[in-house]
Amino acid sequence: MADRRLAFVSYAFTTSADGIATVDTGIDGDVWDINGPHLCKAVACEEATGVTAVHAVTGELGVRVSVAASVVWDGEPRDGKTIIASDRMAERLFDVACKAGETYRFVKCVAVCHDTHNQADPGPAAVALCMQASAEGWKTQLRTHREVWNRLWESADVEIEGDDEAQLALRYSIYQLLIIAPYDSDLLSIPARGLSGQTYKGAVFWDTEMFMLPFYLHVLPEVARRVMKYRVMTLEGARRKAAEYGYQGAFYAWESQDTGDDACTLFNVTDVFTNRPMRTYFRDKQIHISADVAFGIWQYYAFTGDTNFLLEGGAEAMLECARYYASYALYREGRDRYELLDVTGPDEYHERVHNNAFTNAMAKRTIELSLKALREIGRVDAEARQTLIDKLGLAEELSRLEQVAEKLYVPYPDPGTALIEQFDGYYNLEDVPLGELKSRMLNKHEYLGGGNGLATTTQILKQADVVLLLHQFGDQYAEDIKQANWAYYEPRTEHGSSLSPCVYALVAASIGNQEWAYPYFMRTATIDLTGESKQYVGTLYIGGTHPAANGGAWMAAVQGFGGLRAADGIMRIQPALPARWSVLRYSLRLSGDSYRIEVNHSTVRVKAGEGNRSTAKFRVDGTDFSCAPGGELNVAYA
Amino acid sequence: MADRRLAFVSYAFTTSADGIATVDTGIDGDVWDINGPHLCKAVACEEATGVTAVHAVTGELGVRVSVAASVVWDGEPRDGKTIIASDRMAERLFDVACKAGETYRFVKCVAVCHDTHNQADPGPAAVALCMQASAEGWKTQLRTHREVWNRLWESADVEIEGDDEAQLALRYSIYQLLIIAPYDSDLLSIPARGLSGQTYKGAVFWDTEMFMLPFYLHVLPEVARRVMKYRVMTLEGARRKAAEYGYQGAFYAWESQDTGDDACTLFNVTDVFTNRPMRTYFRDKQIHISADVAFGIWQYYAFTGDTNFLLEGGAEAMLECARYYASYALYREGRDRYELLDVTGPDEYHERVHNNAFTNAMAKRTIELSLKALREIGRVDAEARQTLIDKLGLAEELSRLEQVAEKLYVPYPDPGTALIEQFDGYYNLEDVPLGELKSRMLNKHEYLGGGNGLATTTQILKQADVVLLLHQFGDQYAEDIKQANWAYYEPRTEHGSSLSPCVYALVAASIGNQEWAYPYFMRTATIDLTGESKQYVGTLYIGGTHPAANGGAWMAAVQGFGGLRAADGIMRIQPALPARWSVLRYSLRLSGDSYRIEVNHSTVRVKAGEGNRSTAKFRVDGTDFSCAPGGELNVAYA
Repeated sequence: MADRRLAFVSYAFTTSADGIATVDTGIDGDVWDINGPHLCKAVACEEATGVTAVHAVTGELGVRVSVAASVVWDGEPRDGKTIIASDRMAERLFDVACKAGETYRFVKCVAVCHDTHNQADPGPAAVALCMQASAEGWKTQLRTHREVWNRLWESADVEIEGDDEAQLALRYSIYQLLIIAPYDSDLLSIPARGLSGQTYKGAVFWDTEMFMLPFYLHVLPEVARRVMKYRVMTLEGARRKAAEYGYQGAFYAWESQDTGDDACTLFNVTDVFTNRPMRTYFRDKQIHISADVAFGIWQYYAFTGDTNFLLEGGAEAMLECARYYASYALYREGRDRYELLDVTGPDEYHERVHNNAFTNAMAKRTIELSLKALREIGRVDAEARQTLIDKLGLAEELSRLEQVAEKLYVPYPDPGTALIEQFDGYYNLEDVPLGELKSRMLNKHEYLGGGNGLATTTQILKQADVVLLLHQFGDQYAEDIKQANWAYYEPRTEHGSSLSPCVYALVAASIGNQEWAYPYFMRTATIDLTGESKQYVGTLYIGGTHPAANGGAWMAAVQGFGGLRAADGIMRIQPALPARWSVLRYSLRLSGDSYRIEVNHSTVRVKAGEGNRSTAKFRVDGTDFSCAPGGELNVAYA
Repeated sequence: MADRRLAFVSYAFTTSADGIATVDTGIDGDVWDINGPHLCKAVACEEATGVTAVHAVTGELGVRVSVAASVVWDGEPRDGKTIIASDRMAERLFDVACKAGETYRFVKCVAVCHDTHNQADPGPAAVALCMQASAEGWKTQLRTHREVWNRLWESADVEIEGDDEAQLALRYSIYQLLIIAPYDSDLLSIPARGLSGQTYKGAVFWDTEMFMLPFYLHVLPEVARRVMKYRVMTLEGARRKAAEYGYQGAFYAWESQDTGDDACTLFNVTDVFTNRPMRTYFRDKQIHISADVAFGIWQYYAFTGDTNFLLEGGAEAMLECARYYASYALYREGRDRYELLDVTGPDEYHERVHNNAFTNAMAKRTIELSLKALREIGRVDAEARQTLIDKLGLAEELSRLEQVAEKLYVPYPDPGTALIEQFDGYYNLEDVPLGELKSRMLNKHEYLGGGNGLATTTQILKQADVVLLLHQFGDQYAEDIKQANWAYYEPRTEHGSSLSPCVYALVAASIGNQEWAYPYFMRTATIDLTGESKQYVGTLYIGGTHPAANGGAWMAAVQGFGGLRAADGIMRIQPALPARWSVLRYSLRLSGDSYRIEVNHSTVRVKAGEGNRSTAKFRVDGTDFSCAPGGELNVAYA
């Protein structure tokens, strides 16, 4: 973890008789990925003073990769010989004269370098690194490795007392989030299946901003910056996609690649009945992705006060998302409002709907936040603001952006039932129990959405949609509205997406209903541990780890049960611990300062880091408190 | 045909030996329709002085029906006896003492009366009618029957010299149009399968206005009035449908019933792969139906100058259609235009498209025509105009209607290719040859449209769409535009609808391309004669006669090859006869006057009726001529 280019393997063997044992080690470059041979171009092997290396270029993106390995024996060095059997197989052989019962040990040191992110010439680099690391010895490396991990856990760990099962599942989730974080590059984000495979083509989804970002924001803001920087760096791709569909601004990719272009096909699912590709609208109609990105950028800024990030493209990306929605919105004169027609919300079982509540609310807020970001820039650098306005040719448009934001229709709770309709006409769909719907299935892999999916003509949802809206805009909706909509939509939700359960946990916890929340938290935290997660959509394999659920588990624990919600520079804490949780303990980073929070069923304790530079505002159970550097809070709550 | 309530059957039999022959005749009320027993309520039999009758009420609409029958023997009357075997079977038995070799004759007279349209009490009426008709004798009835038919053929016949096959097919088509015409009621129109069965639930489609109305307009304007009156009488149903979808005005039913309510289900096709009902959007999205109706009303007025029809609800219905589109249209600020999103055009293989060229053009024109109709009313009765405006609360809205009409976007021909895109994004669809598409079919009955239909993601059309636009607005598009679009769309059209081929014939003829037009004319005219018409959509049986194609055959012959086009009070004649047609001869009714037209390859002859009241304007080959009552024109053309 200290130098993620290095790996060490320690071997030991004992023989039962005297004789010569031949140790055959080395590097096998015959690695395959989802598209075929992984290392397929310009593969070459090398041997230099005991270090064997394989140099190659990846087939997909043409990344130059070099792998170097050396072997260090316990005790006196041994002579080995190198065999270059093929252009991608470099072996290292050692004949060891063994005595019966004796144990022989060696450590293999491997360095992997590639030319993306700050590694100009990976070949020599890998060889040099391998030599240096084996010279220093693995014990040194192991020590620094442990130091880094300890620091990471110190800031990231969440302790639960009284519920070992939850503790294990949550730590598993945090571990996943720590190993998949992009520590070294502004050009990478986190794909939907982390490091577990190439499912979903290794592309980046809204999962990252909506479900992983909160963890990094609170715990590792530098990683949060990288993740959002990736979106800034891929703005051009989002502009290309908006233009492709005839709109202005930035329409971020549903499956974002390294260029920001969309890897999502128009035929994303195969019909199990005809084996034909099925036209789906993930790529065309999930316009909320641009809002999810803009929200992420704003949240990063709100958490860190990092104005530079806004100046270095953050604000530009937000404004381009706002502009996209303004060009997408149509004005309905009869109702004096703007509408967003023909979209797909988070609930992908209902494609091409009109005025999806979540999408409209996010789009409206995106425009507001982008104008706010422009003001923030103006505050610190009026010239930069003007330059940006000129660059985007926004001068004429600003007033229109304000008008669209003001008049963009957001479906509101029914005065009688407190229910928010997921989209125009949702209530007219067949209201069938989930069980009955499933009993209609003819094939266990059949897709419930798409052209003729069983769910499309019913009220059955794939995942939280209105309930996600209530989480995102938690402050704007009263408890009874959350209560009513949770109760209405929960039995109608199939949770066909791993992003769904944590949202139900979060909203249930926010209204103090742990009985509703806890099972959904556990379902989220254990998703990779039970082996019960969905493995197929149609005939498409979608298995692997679920980073969004891992992030969702952290959100449910800290933001849900812990009741932590950051807004307007105030950290609000309104705990709702499950009965069996006696204590919840976690760390928090805020504008560069750090805090330790401890919550039990009666009190909230906050300890500000000694080195903090500023005093933070906390609001516990409705009352405001300040916490100076090194200070401590100990607040009882109802 | 003189009294459509009457039927006569003449019987004769000869015996080979002496003996008693028992003639068993009567009425069998055990009739079934698509929903089960047709006569199922209050069935009773009666016998009165030799007339047997069955009185019943239909199961579907509760229509009271009475059937009365009597038997009249040649020579001396015979005693018969009546047997009422069941509540719906009334037999009449005659024992005839026969001599070998002698022939015995009788005529059975049947009267059918029902309580719809002007028949208050069908029971006594049927019995009385039967008695009276059998008293007058069948010869009298046959004579008046023939007189009526002769008059009908005199005004309706189209003579083709030089092409007996075409002549037969065209006369067959005209015969169909004559027998299905509603002669007795303003509450009935013509269903999509005429009298041939209950396919499509006996409902009325746009077929009537678009493909049958032209024949009646030119030949039997009183029938045209009835057909359009049906739409006026069902305006309330259209208002209900518009309101159901959240719009103002009138959204006419896709499958219109006697109330104007829509018989079309949301699941109109069954998926052959899963046998599940498939969600289709015929009912929701074919918004052009209201424009088709408004056009029909206006054409009836333009042809007949029947201002009363506008005053008696015609103008109101048109304005409500206009108002529907104005409330449906959304304004796109970036392009300063109104758009119609999420519609289905005539090409039903592409549901839920945006800015369908035909639909937008028809909607725009509908608003213009409705305002014109309002002006026409004002011309003859200013007070009536004001009353209508007040009744509809239109005062505020008129200027907006004008504005929407002015700025409603209609896709225009590309300056380079002259092509009109059928709808937004049509060109992005897969451009696959029809044959290749069909080779992908897994089931010969599989529906090419709907959720996952093979055609939906390709450029293959079900039926004329842009080409229909070019027919409807023929005067507004230059020949090269018609030529280019015909050539582009024709190979991409599957003609999955019987409404399609005649449109291709019409547009081809209008640009003087008989080679293109003739096969499509013949395909239309012979549709019921070849037995090759499509019998299934998914698992839905759609067989029967094709009145729209019958009307289309007349249109292709008279308006296509005959080149007859009425507009702005001028009858334009620009013939383009197929080579083998030496002469085309037909009659024409215009504002109550009648004309005989005869066209050959070099001249156009017009003969005005002696009794005509006014002088008509004709334009042949671009030159204007007047034709006074009893006058004659004889014009050579290039």
